[in-house]
Amino acid sequence: MDSTNGSQTLEEQARAFFDSAPPLQNTHQITQKLDQFIQHRSSPSANGENRRIVCVTSGGTTAPLEQRCVRYVDNFSSGHRGATSTEYFLKAGYAVIFLYRRGSFQPFCRSLPDDPLVECFVPTDDLNIRVREAYSEAVKRAVVDHHAAVTGGLLLKLPFNTIFEYLQMLQLIATSMRCLGPCAMFYLAAAVSDFYVPWKDMVEHKIQSGSHFLDVQLVQVPKMLSMLRKDWAPLAFCVSFKLETDSNILLNKAAAALEKYKMHAVVANELTTRKEHVVVVTSADNIIVHRDKSHSGNDVENPLIKLLSERHEAYIKDSSRLV
Amino acid sequence: MDSTNGSQTLEEQARAFFDSAPPLQNTHQITQKLDQFIQHRSSPSANGENRRIVCVTSGGTTAPLEQRCVRYVDNFSSGHRGATSTEYFLKAGYAVIFLYRRGSFQPFCRSLPDDPLVECFVPTDDLNIRVREAYSEAVKRAVVDHHAAVTGGLLLKLPFNTIFEYLQMLQLIATSMRCLGPCAMFYLAAAVSDFYVPWKDMVEHKIQSGSHFLDVQLVQVPKMLSMLRKDWAPLAFCVSFKLETDSNILLNKAAAALEKYKMHAVVANELTTRKEHVVVVTSADNIIVHRDKSHSGNDVENPLIKLLSERHEAYIKDSSRLV
Repeated sequence: MDSTNGSQTLEEQARAFFDSAPPLQNTHQITQKLDQFIQHRSSPSANGENRRIVCVTSGGTTAPLEQRCVRYVDNFSSGHRGATSTEYFLKAGYAVIFLYRRGSFQPFCRSLPDDPLVECFVPTDDLNIRVREAYSEAVKRAVVDHHAAVTGGLLLKLPFNTIFEYLQMLQLIATSMRCLGPCAMFYLAAAVSDFYVPWKDMVEHKIQSGSHFLDVQLVQVPKMLSMLRKDWAPLAFCVSFKLETDSNILLNKAAAALEKYKMHAVVANELTTRKEHVVVVTSADNIIVHRDKSHSGNDVENPLIKLLSERHEAYIKDSSRLV
Repeated sequence: MDSTNGSQTLEEQARAFFDSAPPLQNTHQITQKLDQFIQHRSSPSANGENRRIVCVTSGGTTAPLEQRCVRYVDNFSSGHRGATSTEYFLKAGYAVIFLYRRGSFQPFCRSLPDDPLVECFVPTDDLNIRVREAYSEAVKRAVVDHHAAVTGGLLLKLPFNTIFEYLQMLQLIATSMRCLGPCAMFYLAAAVSDFYVPWKDMVEHKIQSGSHFLDVQLVQVPKMLSMLRKDWAPLAFCVSFKLETDSNILLNKAAAALEKYKMHAVVANELTTRKEHVVVVTSADNIIVHRDKSHSGNDVENPLIKLLSERHEAYIKDSSRLV
């Protein structure tokens, strides 16, 4: 365990994290996909608003406890927020880079059951298959809308599992999006591990269960939000999330994160009420955003993305005035 | 943390575990489903072989670190072994109680991609949907075979997430299956947490990430295999699994488990080669079981389930001779 962690600068901690991380398997392929996606979007004919791209991160990261990974510390997150928000960002005219945990909720698929294939379809008499009546619209919408977004160059999906993969991919994405200047947005809804075991400190083989107690020591993950703002994509509009189970400390923690990481907005949400309302904390104001209960099927993400999209638009205009 | 854990008897440890566990939400409903399933199977007209029911456990359990669960320690397991084995058990004439981790592989669906709905289907010109040619057979087979097994009363699926849910459900299942005597089999392929944080020792709210280090102390999960053999279903044929990443210690650990927990067989497998070959360790012999490479699509579970089914049949005959 690196006991000097406390006295290192952020840059040193970040470098140590990336140096010790197992390298991404497919960096070249990811970079190529990103460049194509961003280039397609930023053709010279596109005007300012059309060039907006948001990177939505979604689902929880894992922190492996063993190099040949059997056990890991995981963060609870279904990915519902990220998947839903992606749909509303597409509606608002954004192209979306969706950085998601494998197996988490996918855009356009969130009203479907866990195992949609075996739950939504039934055999017909001639040994073919058909959609159950109750899921007919949801299934059609999932396939048609998802397909349209992907083939239209408006949705790029990149999966991760570990905190090592997540942060390396986020850096790749941010570096690729830097060319978009203020037209880039980061909407960081993923539940990112706060603590991890540095790769070099990890045992190679499965931890043996001979003893009655297991003591796991983890160190803090470097706060990469600061790296994103300072180095990776300094002009991008950045929105992070603060999830707490204790409402008493939520807003203070959100305000502290806003200041510490120089975010443009922090979305504060509580575990049990997160689908009903959230608070958007900015340096100017705190805005409570409620789900519109008068229409069924309305999500809190609908007014949330509208608000953030307006703020982003104002930010782009302000930035162009400064140039 | 309960420091007397080391000197408690197994029964005391098991009682302490269950007493402190958050109670299952839907015990009554699960018991009802189990009783119906087992009753349907053990109608008086059924002969000995037809009455065989196996409980297949599949996927990894989680050990929550917080009561309002945001972080947890998870065990890697795709559930591929359990899902595949379930298909072969059904072929071999068993009815299967499939106790699986939410989101893990499902029987008849394992050759499909991660998000089958959006990957296997495409829109048609008239805004309907159709299956992609490449997935046509796999999709049809998944829906038809899965549906036939469930509606035919041959497959009962019960999902879990946490170690608390898993062990409470396993006890319910075993108690319900006790009436089957030696016709019951347990095929325990789930990756069960070795360590957990007792519910009462857990912090209620999310662990705060203010400090540079996090020290997590876990205690050993009571070895419930012994409870299964001694109390819950003493006549059932029991097969457990030993997964290691270090082949040097694998067979010794499997043999030790066989003896310690009085299993009828232990399937020893190594993380990197587990789809190619396994070793079935019994008190009489060690049998290496290989995947038949001459036919594509053959799984190591094919010969494995054949072998275990034969052993189970012999065990049933032996038991009836003793009565």
